[in-house]
Parts: sequence; C-alpha cells; structure tokens
Amino acid sequence: MPKRRPPRGEHVRRPRPKSAKPDHTAQWLYGVHAVAAALANPQRRCRRLVVTHECWRDLAAAAEKGGDAPTPEFLDRHEIDRLLQPGAVHQGIALLADPLPEPDLSEILADLPDRAVVIVLDQATDPRNVGAVLRSADAFGAAAVIVQDRHAPEATAAMAKAASGALETVALVRAVNIARALSELKEAGFWCFGLDARGDTTLAEADLSGRIALVLGSEGKGLRPLVRQSCDILARIPLGGTVDSLNLSNAAAVALYEAAGKRG
Amino acid sequence: MPKRRPPRGEHVRRPRPKSAKPDHTAQWLYGVHAVAAALANPQRRCRRLVVTHECWRDLAAAAEKGGDAPTPEFLDRHEIDRLLQPGAVHQGIALLADPLPEPDLSEILADLPDRAVVIVLDQATDPRNVGAVLRSADAFGAAAVIVQDRHAPEATAAMAKAASGALETVALVRAVNIARALSELKEAGFWCFGLDARGDTTLAEADLSGRIALVLGSEGKGLRPLVRQSCDILARIPLGGTVDSLNLSNAAAVALYEAAGKRG
Repeated sequence: MPKRRPPRGEHVRRPRPKSAKPDHTAQWLYGVHAVAAALANPQRRCRRLVVTHECWRDLAAAAEKGGDAPTPEFLDRHEIDRLLQPGAVHQGIALLADPLPEPDLSEILADLPDRAVVIVLDQATDPRNVGAVLRSADAFGAAAVIVQDRHAPEATAAMAKAASGALETVALVRAVNIARALSELKEAGFWCFGLDARGDTTLAEADLSGRIALVLGSEGKGLRPLVRQSCDILARIPLGGTVDSLNLSNAAAVALYEAAGKRG
Repeated sequence: MPKRRPPRGEHVRRPRPKSAKPDHTAQWLYGVHAVAAALANPQRRCRRLVVTHECWRDLAAAAEKGGDAPTPEFLDRHEIDRLLQPGAVHQGIALLADPLPEPDLSEILADLPDRAVVIVLDQATDPRNVGAVLRSADAFGAAAVIVQDRHAPEATAAMAKAASGALETVALVRAVNIARALSELKEAGFWCFGLDARGDTTLAEADLSGRIALVLGSEGKGLRPLVRQSCDILARIPLGGTVDSLNLSNAAAVALYEAAGKRG
C-alpha cells in the first residue's frame, strides 16, 4: 500500500529553523514537589497529569497557578506505578511534560544581577546529585547551575525529583566546554572559585563578594587541569577525617551556604 | 530419607546468649573507596573479594593493611556485574563481608571525647542519604551517626558506596526511640540542636562548643513534635529561595561545616 502524502496546508511540517534545539520527547516527572513546581511554572508545557484523589486535595491550588495544567486523571497508586520506571517514588502524582527550554550561557549572563552566584559542575554525571545541587542553589539564592553538556545527565525525572521543584526555578545551562564557559563568566565580571582540596585558601577566608562562580569537579577526580587553571582562585573546604572528599552536592551546599552567609 | 542429626562435639550449635544481636548474612560491598576502607578495617570479617586486574593494581596496598583480606579472585567487569544487583556501580571491585557489629548508644557514649559531635537522624529512610551523611560526618570529624532503628535503612551496599569508606570509620548507631536517645545524650553532657526551619536562632549564631548533637528530621516533615521538644535549642539554616528545605545530607553537611568551622 503506498504511503499517504501529508495533507497540504497548515498541517505540512515546516522546515525547522537552523538555530532551534532538537525536540525532546515529553517525559514523566513525579513526586509532590517536582510536579507542583512544574504545574506552577508557566514555561512548562504539561501534557498529562495522573494523581490519586488523596494527593490531589493538597495540590489543586498549585495546579491553578500555572494555567497550563491538564485535567487530572485520577488513578490509584499502582496504576501510576505502571506508567513510570520501576521503583519511582511518585508519592501519588506524576506529570507528563515537555522538557524546559535550555538557555545558552550568553542568554543567562545578559539577565543576571550584579551580585549573582552561579554553580559550575565539571563532569557531574549523577542526576540525583545534579538535582540536589539545583535544590541547594534555589535555597541559597544562586541563579544558575552550569553543567558540561557531554557528561551531564538529561533533566530526567530522577533529577527533577531530587531538585524538589528547583528545576523550575534555577536555570540549568549546558555548556559544551567548561573552560570556555569560565572565560565567558570572567568576561561578564564573575570571579571563578574552583573548589579544590589543594586550594590556596579556605572558602571561609575567601572574598566571596560580587559576581561569583563556584566551580566543582567530579567526586573522584576533582577539577580537571584545564578547568583548574581557568579559575581565578582555588579554595578548599577544610576536611579533617579519613575520607578525602565530600559528596558533590554536599560540597556545593557547603560552598553556597558559606557564600550566602558572607553576602548576608 | 531421614534427616541427618548434627555430629556431636564441637560442631553442635551452642545456644546463642540472650544479649547477642541477630546474625546478619554477609553482604556485597562495592566501589573502590567502600571496599578499600572495608579491607583496611580490622573489625570487618571479609569473605570473598572479586576484582579486575586493573582495579587491583591500585588497591593491593590497602588490602594488606587489614590483615583479613581474602585472596582476590580476578574477574572481568561483566562477571562482577552478575554477582551484584542490576545497576551497581562497582568500579571493578566487590567484597562479600559480614556487617559490622552495631554498637549501642551507651557503649559509644562511654568512649567519646569531651568535644564530640554526633548527628541524629530522625526517620531517615534513603540509604544514599545516610551514606552521604556518614561521609560528611567523617570529613568534619563527627564521631557517630544515630538513626532510628525502625525507619533506618540497613547498612547495605548502596549506603556503603555513598559513605565512600566512612561506614568503617564513623559509628552507625541504631536507637529504638530517638527522644530517649536525646535524653541519654543530654545526660552525657551533649547540647542537642534540632535543625528546624522555624528555629529561634540561626546555626551561625548558635553556640556550638562542647559536646553537641545535631538533630535532623525527615526531608518532608522535619522533626517530629516529641523530638523537637527533646532538643535544647532549635536552630535554622537560613534559606532564601522557593524550595522550603535542603536535601537531608546537604543540610547535615552544612551543619557539620558550621560546627567544624566554629570549633577550629
């Protein structure tokens, strides 16, 4: 049987402009905080919402904030289980939504205030770690988390769940090259602090005023040499035990806490 | 065929003394840091060690420290995969070992120094979070992590991996009742600081000298009323964003960092 040609007129697919990012398929997000924040985010294109009656009682208000909430489909917990990956801790709610638009670093930099804090993660691969960093970034008022495109996990459900809503409020920026991103940040007036066990100063002693970028390497290997060299200052979190490093998101939380405390 | 009776003499199983804890089956631990620390820990009874040739080159020295290391069996990565749960990030090494003896709070308290810091987790359920807390506890010199027996995850491979070796160095204590554990701590001269968003003071303003316990509730619900009432002081980590709490291990890391900084 010959394939049908597409109908003429408005339904014919237009060629995609060259600058557009590739389409991503809609993904399930789950968990009360992640879904409530996504529903309240006008930038989210939400396609399907499944929820238990019990869970919906607490969330109906949040869903109305965004304006784009699909009509909820009431399912029981086991029916929701079957829509998601095994083991997903959905708390009685899941949302099928398009990924958020991913801003370029240059777009972000144009809009940031004079005293902005950003986090740069060199080679973070664990979506739960990146999610927890987004959450702490929101909590301590940081504007963006910049990750290396090639190594960073997709903004999956696990990341959204760990971010506890912060995926909607903190810009997640994918940079092709972290050293180049640091150059761009420096040109925009950021002081780049690399967190490094061999740092010249402690975070507590460092001058964390103005625009600052807090740069963290991978847990096992720390900052790569070129990234380390691209930082203005290497600062350490003083550790006194037998383990030689903190979990990535714990290190980021400590750095954000120190910066927030000093900046008042 | 009739069952054979056990042979007489030394092989007959003796009745277990009443005070003994139940036997736990040996469990697989995996990951370079977790296995290296377990091999170096003389308290660990290690039963089987599987490792790639590549990984063993870096670890042979650590294995010799403990004295109880089994002869390594050299396998390739896929063969190790098949011994472990799906998705286990083993980095080329896994160790079958008995769980560590679990000390009672009273045993621990008798041995702690005058300026000890301990962490108390009320209803922590995620093994990766508890593991990351152990890791930060080690890094910032805390002596013990006390969890509620009924809710706390077993010291599984996931916890050991997240602890990055700290399961061997920081005492993990299971308490039946957290409020009672706080009473015991107070009798032993500890000031109990409950971390609570509605705290009277910030952690930075609090007097964190002497023996202190840092008490953290579950992520969603915070401290339970009875546990909150059992604390001497409620202290908050100032948060300025839209999320209303930090990830549990991130909150613990911030509290431990603040305490370590003040105590010098």
